[in-house]
Amino acid sequence: MSTALGRPDLISLAAGFTDNATLPVDQVRQVLGEVLSSRKRGEPALQYGSTTGLPELRRLTAERLDRLEQAAGASGSAASGMAEQLVITHGSQQLLYMLTEVLCDPGDIVLVEDPTYFVLLGIAQSRGIDCRGLKLEADGVDLKCLDNVLGSLKRGRRLGRVKLIYLITYHQNPTSTTTSFAKKVGVLDLLRCYEKMAGHPIYLIEDATYRELGFQGLGEASALAARGARARVVYAGTYSKSFATGVRVGFGALPEAILAAVLRVKGNHDFGTANLLQHMLARALTSGCYDVHLAELRHRYAQKAGWMISALRAHFPAQVQWREPTGGMYVWAALPRKVKTGLHSRLFRTALDRDVLYVPGQLCYAPDTTRARPDHEMRLSYGNATRQEIDVGIRRLGSAIKQSLSRPCSAQRARDPK
Amino acid sequence: MSTALGRPDLISLAAGFTDNATLPVDQVRQVLGEVLSSRKRGEPALQYGSTTGLPELRRLTAERLDRLEQAAGASGSAASGMAEQLVITHGSQQLLYMLTEVLCDPGDIVLVEDPTYFVLLGIAQSRGIDCRGLKLEADGVDLKCLDNVLGSLKRGRRLGRVKLIYLITYHQNPTSTTTSFAKKVGVLDLLRCYEKMAGHPIYLIEDATYRELGFQGLGEASALAARGARARVVYAGTYSKSFATGVRVGFGALPEAILAAVLRVKGNHDFGTANLLQHMLARALTSGCYDVHLAELRHRYAQKAGWMISALRAHFPAQVQWREPTGGMYVWAALPRKVKTGLHSRLFRTALDRDVLYVPGQLCYAPDTTRARPDHEMRLSYGNATRQEIDVGIRRLGSAIKQSLSRPCSAQRARDPK
Repeated sequence: MSTALGRPDLISLAAGFTDNATLPVDQVRQVLGEVLSSRKRGEPALQYGSTTGLPELRRLTAERLDRLEQAAGASGSAASGMAEQLVITHGSQQLLYMLTEVLCDPGDIVLVEDPTYFVLLGIAQSRGIDCRGLKLEADGVDLKCLDNVLGSLKRGRRLGRVKLIYLITYHQNPTSTTTSFAKKVGVLDLLRCYEKMAGHPIYLIEDATYRELGFQGLGEASALAARGARARVVYAGTYSKSFATGVRVGFGALPEAILAAVLRVKGNHDFGTANLLQHMLARALTSGCYDVHLAELRHRYAQKAGWMISALRAHFPAQVQWREPTGGMYVWAALPRKVKTGLHSRLFRTALDRDVLYVPGQLCYAPDTTRARPDHEMRLSYGNATRQEIDVGIRRLGSAIKQSLSRPCSAQRARDPK
Repeated sequence: MSTALGRPDLISLAAGFTDNATLPVDQVRQVLGEVLSSRKRGEPALQYGSTTGLPELRRLTAERLDRLEQAAGASGSAASGMAEQLVITHGSQQLLYMLTEVLCDPGDIVLVEDPTYFVLLGIAQSRGIDCRGLKLEADGVDLKCLDNVLGSLKRGRRLGRVKLIYLITYHQNPTSTTTSFAKKVGVLDLLRCYEKMAGHPIYLIEDATYRELGFQGLGEASALAARGARARVVYAGTYSKSFATGVRVGFGALPEAILAAVLRVKGNHDFGTANLLQHMLARALTSGCYDVHLAELRHRYAQKAGWMISALRAHFPAQVQWREPTGGMYVWAALPRKVKTGLHSRLFRTALDRDVLYVPGQLCYAPDTTRARPDHEMRLSYGNATRQEIDVGIRRLGSAIKQSLSRPCSAQRARDPK
């Protein structure tokens, strides 16, 4: 990031920033104008709120979740009555952090997708938590791999350290994979089976950050809709990514058994999320302005994904593989294995020399020594880049990759650090 | 709090809420209107910011600190060049939490004032940190007591566990005590002496939350102005209490040695404080609107403090002692020792029966077993209460106290739980 800021010509396809041009400047001004239109309305928004969050926003969030589940064909009971289990957080990231505080001790194990959201890996590392990677298939984690990993941990007498599994279930960051509902049920079934042996609950964190940013339809139901899930699923959502990232408001639907503990930690962190932002979002949700903007955002990201895919087709060599994103803001590209993409790789340096930045794929893999850590992939974001930046950036990157591919293998082995 | 919400007639003199009538509804609407007046201005405010905080707000904060120190007669170098050491936080509380994360392990010791801000005690408890209380005099902690406590910890081979001293230096919560500059220098001198024996730095957290809420003048310089202080003093400030608590923006000026670690934790917590709120405050500071409001707030709180003092004179029995606050929003009242004020005391229940709530003084004392924990005091806040509520609340409380005082000692001993 500091690299990017110091170089005006650099095109960053790295950051997960949202599209500047779509930021709802007029809408936020109008909504805030309404929230602050009179003392009667404005005073509560400028006063402390509660640690749990604004009751109206929690109710609206529960209703919204309910509609999403019903649209996905889940029975009406999935999210209903959910308001009491909701906590509003300072971005969904605060929830992830608090969950590791509440549920994990140093030395504990969190299971993650291979690859996963690198910030979660940073949180885990900072708290002395080990992460184990799970093979990711086109419809979510490989259940056989999950079974194998849990089985192996059991045999190694480490099952007692497994506290969480973390899945980004819609248009995953970084691969854009969406987990099927069947897979979620399968994961919960396996957890149920192993937690008896573990002697404690193993929770599933379903990070649904990109749920409403799908390009076609809303996708399948969340894990909350699975049988018995309410006691084991933490559903993490956010209003920032799908509205304005300068407004940091996320939320979590928590199993009753851990709600009080998370609220205690939240009380110690900050007493509660900035009340003004919560009032603003509640108003944006009730006025319909949020949904109008969301529809525009989906359209815009679909368009930008299309631009990036076109650019990839035009400028990347045929040996690079990628999948078209179905939502969110990332394309995951796999290079031939001999081309390393890491921070210290020749390709990364060449790309930087040509003023283009990507996220090295390796950063998205847990430092799990039971398997090799792939280092030939990259995350490309079309979130913040303009059409021209996408095109120029991908062209520059394509040419850097071609240059890497044209080098003889021996030179690569000799010069590329591990 | 939940007690208060469920009873409409209850007068709460407990919460540290700010005055609803002074919340700057019009000003915030106008400032936000300016921030969002065009796409060019509005987009940066609605986009992610940096983990450290908005550069403009950090610069404005450093300049503001510099002016405060200079007005207090400190040499100009105290806060200058400070912008690089500033981090913007989600309320000043987040800073306190992060500092315990960065500097303390479970079993470590934090030295606090007797009494102190109870939320800090809660944070410490949640993280397994022990607190030791220091006698508080009219101008700050008793240096002899600090010396004794550190000496005794040294003799008990526990000096190595002392990581922090936490002082609320201006119009302290809960006693309204202001620490003199000489005392701050004395504390730093003692810490310097003991930290050689401890083998590691012992940091001073100066919580200056109420610094700009003094009724007469700005008071003395902060500890930042002391010789060599920049390497040991963490200065914690906030824009929420002195503007609008629904806007949670605090800041910390940190010694260079711990800045990177705090920023790492902040990055894991939330990536950075909501950017929109930071832009709003920067605009409020540059437009002068913040300072106009602050002057009104100081006037208002001075007036409310006066109302509470008048009510105390009129309705509290002569045996109750208090000091007139010089700023902030609290009066600390000491009852005769035989009248207990705790959550399970007869007085607390009687007060609640009469629909008035206070903060039991005992909650503000660290659970430090090396000294008795006083349980005959109370914190009274005039922050959020109206003139009438202050008057009626104090009258109800006075009558409850009189009732307690009129009971024979034997009855009190028999019935009041410890």
